[in-house]
Amino acid sequence: MKLTKIVVIGAGAAGATAALWAKKTDRKCEVVLINREPYPEYSRCGLPYTISKIIPDFSNLIEHEPSWYENFVKIDLRLETEVIDVDSKAKTVKIKNLKTGQEETISYDKLVIATGSYPVAPPIEGAKEKKGVYFLRTLKDAMDIEAAAQKAKNAVVIGAGLIGVEAAENLVEKGLKVAIVEFLPSLLPLMIDPDMADLVEEEMKKHGIEVYTNTAAKAVIGGEKVEKVLVECRETKETKELPADLVLIGAGVRPYTEIAQKAGVQLGTTKYIKVNEKCETNIPDIYSAGDCTEYPDFVTGEPTPQGMGTIAVRMGKVCGINAAGGEAKMPKGVLLTRITKIFDLQVAAVGPTLAQLERAGIKPVIGKITGSSKPGYFPGGKLIRIKIFSDENGRILGAQIVGYEDVHQKINVIAAAMQSGMTVYDLEWLETCYAPASCPTWDVLTLVAEPVIKKIEKKK
Amino acid sequence: MKLTKIVVIGAGAAGATAALWAKKTDRKCEVVLINREPYPEYSRCGLPYTISKIIPDFSNLIEHEPSWYENFVKIDLRLETEVIDVDSKAKTVKIKNLKTGQEETISYDKLVIATGSYPVAPPIEGAKEKKGVYFLRTLKDAMDIEAAAQKAKNAVVIGAGLIGVEAAENLVEKGLKVAIVEFLPSLLPLMIDPDMADLVEEEMKKHGIEVYTNTAAKAVIGGEKVEKVLVECRETKETKELPADLVLIGAGVRPYTEIAQKAGVQLGTTKYIKVNEKCETNIPDIYSAGDCTEYPDFVTGEPTPQGMGTIAVRMGKVCGINAAGGEAKMPKGVLLTRITKIFDLQVAAVGPTLAQLERAGIKPVIGKITGSSKPGYFPGGKLIRIKIFSDENGRILGAQIVGYEDVHQKINVIAAAMQSGMTVYDLEWLETCYAPASCPTWDVLTLVAEPVIKKIEKKK
Repeated sequence: MKLTKIVVIGAGAAGATAALWAKKTDRKCEVVLINREPYPEYSRCGLPYTISKIIPDFSNLIEHEPSWYENFVKIDLRLETEVIDVDSKAKTVKIKNLKTGQEETISYDKLVIATGSYPVAPPIEGAKEKKGVYFLRTLKDAMDIEAAAQKAKNAVVIGAGLIGVEAAENLVEKGLKVAIVEFLPSLLPLMIDPDMADLVEEEMKKHGIEVYTNTAAKAVIGGEKVEKVLVECRETKETKELPADLVLIGAGVRPYTEIAQKAGVQLGTTKYIKVNEKCETNIPDIYSAGDCTEYPDFVTGEPTPQGMGTIAVRMGKVCGINAAGGEAKMPKGVLLTRITKIFDLQVAAVGPTLAQLERAGIKPVIGKITGSSKPGYFPGGKLIRIKIFSDENGRILGAQIVGYEDVHQKINVIAAAMQSGMTVYDLEWLETCYAPASCPTWDVLTLVAEPVIKKIEKKK
Repeated sequence: MKLTKIVVIGAGAAGATAALWAKKTDRKCEVVLINREPYPEYSRCGLPYTISKIIPDFSNLIEHEPSWYENFVKIDLRLETEVIDVDSKAKTVKIKNLKTGQEETISYDKLVIATGSYPVAPPIEGAKEKKGVYFLRTLKDAMDIEAAAQKAKNAVVIGAGLIGVEAAENLVEKGLKVAIVEFLPSLLPLMIDPDMADLVEEEMKKHGIEVYTNTAAKAVIGGEKVEKVLVECRETKETKELPADLVLIGAGVRPYTEIAQKAGVQLGTTKYIKVNEKCETNIPDIYSAGDCTEYPDFVTGEPTPQGMGTIAVRMGKVCGINAAGGEAKMPKGVLLTRITKIFDLQVAAVGPTLAQLERAGIKPVIGKITGSSKPGYFPGGKLIRIKIFSDENGRILGAQIVGYEDVHQKINVIAAAMQSGMTVYDLEWLETCYAPASCPTWDVLTLVAEPVIKKIEKKK
């Protein structure tokens, strides 16, 4: 029997996971893993922590050495190699070695497109020309920023999404004076609602970060190198010049879809690659996974560019298993279970934010409470605030948790509740654990169901 | 309309919760809350921590002052008062003030029996006669032990259940030399399997506790006061005398059911009070909740004396709502989601142990893995071991987690998964959160599903 030959484009979380699961599913299949960067899979999410040296060395982020792929899992890893063309009828890809310039055409039985995405900048005058302005997307970006941060004094971070917020923390840890500028009225706007983000702002300010929300970065000012960032409050139109010898832009990404489009792969309404539950594209034998794809949101059903490591590895696993002849399926939608830590504060969410729900035409019933991570009588309990959304029948539509302890695993409880179709009525009676030193008899997870139920019952 | 009069016997977690939820459900109902002890509700689970002064003052454990009941929630609280008789036809209880000796007969429309349980000792020669031998069940017990521990040097804890283990830790923190003696072959035998308990034993020994498992306490030796405990290894029959000026017995409990039986309330097969999902007993208008009751185990369906604070408050809530004319139901079974902390180690379980499953005629499929609380590349990740049980169709039957971080909320994820009927196939794809500083892309919670699925598929 002919061996299956699987070609994977992109060795990020999605692509590398696909390659590994293909081999795990069928040891005999042949896998070629192609990556433009000079490194195999590394943790993109870990990059901000290399700036502060909390993660001491860049090499810590690299999952496995190139030799591991060759020798241990028998994957044909091609680094610094770009796919320049694909022929989905002939089932071939044309690749180019970026070091030697050598081109090669290789055939595939199954193709996995995991090309990822790249950062984009909002229109800021001078941002492209001046030195000292960075994105944080690749290991090389992190190396450049870390080197620059050694000499820099003032950093301005543009965009208070996950990357911006984490970069800001690490620049502070590195010893810089940091300002963060967010176009929307609150921090982490795609993750949590403004009434949860106030704690994040407080935590940042407590650590010396200047926070400018509802503010547009208008221009990067300086000579050859950046010296200041001109910002304008969107409400008052007041402007200010923020000193900056380092600017980091974390303001969104676009998917790499050129290769997919060359293969005839259809993009979805979001312009990301469209896949089904098996991570199949519209073209036979071509799969796609990770940051270049869209996937239905679990709650709204709307296709969503998900851009998360957790989803990338899950889609990668599905691609790998299916490409190698196994059978795997993604859940029907993605929850976007997300977490970050800003200094001592943990911030988590699952499902759409209120603004996202409303945009989908959903007016949720809202419950929100503040409690403690431990029983009141036990010392050391920490503040925890939780907000939950439900529909009129009690179906859980999302949650946000902000606090100083246990936040990440609590959001996982809500993720499990949502994925399994639990209602707030079920959540009210969830038998959580309790011990003095650990958590209260009624966890905020269950208590938050009560105000929601009260509101639902009142409406009946 | 006549006001509903609700009498609650016992102001522990179950009884006090019932009283409060009755008032919450119908502000106008009259509630009499009767307690034999001189204090209203306090945290029984917090008692061990008063020995070490981790909880600095006994009063910290008391939920609310007596005046709060009278003035704020308008509950007629009767402390140091015992119920000496009940007439379920006339719907009256006869109570006696233990201070004054005065007796009174009061009527009820609804009666809640939350009489709790009391500790019992295995047959140990001299245990009843000698001074210096304690149970740890009431606030008074804790006060006595704390006072004794101030002068004591050597403590022997008999029984390595939750109370024994937590007491041992706190006696060490107090400065005593501690030995713990467990009849069964491993620590926390009703909570975790022997192959998970080794980490508990290691943690105890690391903190200087002598651990004697598979060992019977045969006699308490001394003059008027205890001086030694004679123990015998059940396997080798080797004996040893352990020095002890303080002995603490945590070897199980029995329910207070006399009053219930006087009322004609039926006990279940376990000799605890039998209730249905509404916490109704067999006698009309008599409810029961908490440590004096049995309830079906979620997995085996077998009636189980549950004896846990989390379940007590849930049953109390159900009683209170129903007694006041509302409608509430317990989930169909209890998960016994449980957690404790032994020095730095957290130990949690949900559902039956392997021995308990086997006793119920269930031979589960088992998955067990060891991982880290954080991504491999991030510093500070801590060991976490997880074991999960499933039936042949993938239904989750229980789990045990032991580790140094995040254990309590992880067990809550499995509790939610069990309560909502998730299978290991669902768990494998659960979209947990991920961030470098928080937890890995594949949490051990999801990874542990893989070996189970592999075994299930192999059997097909």
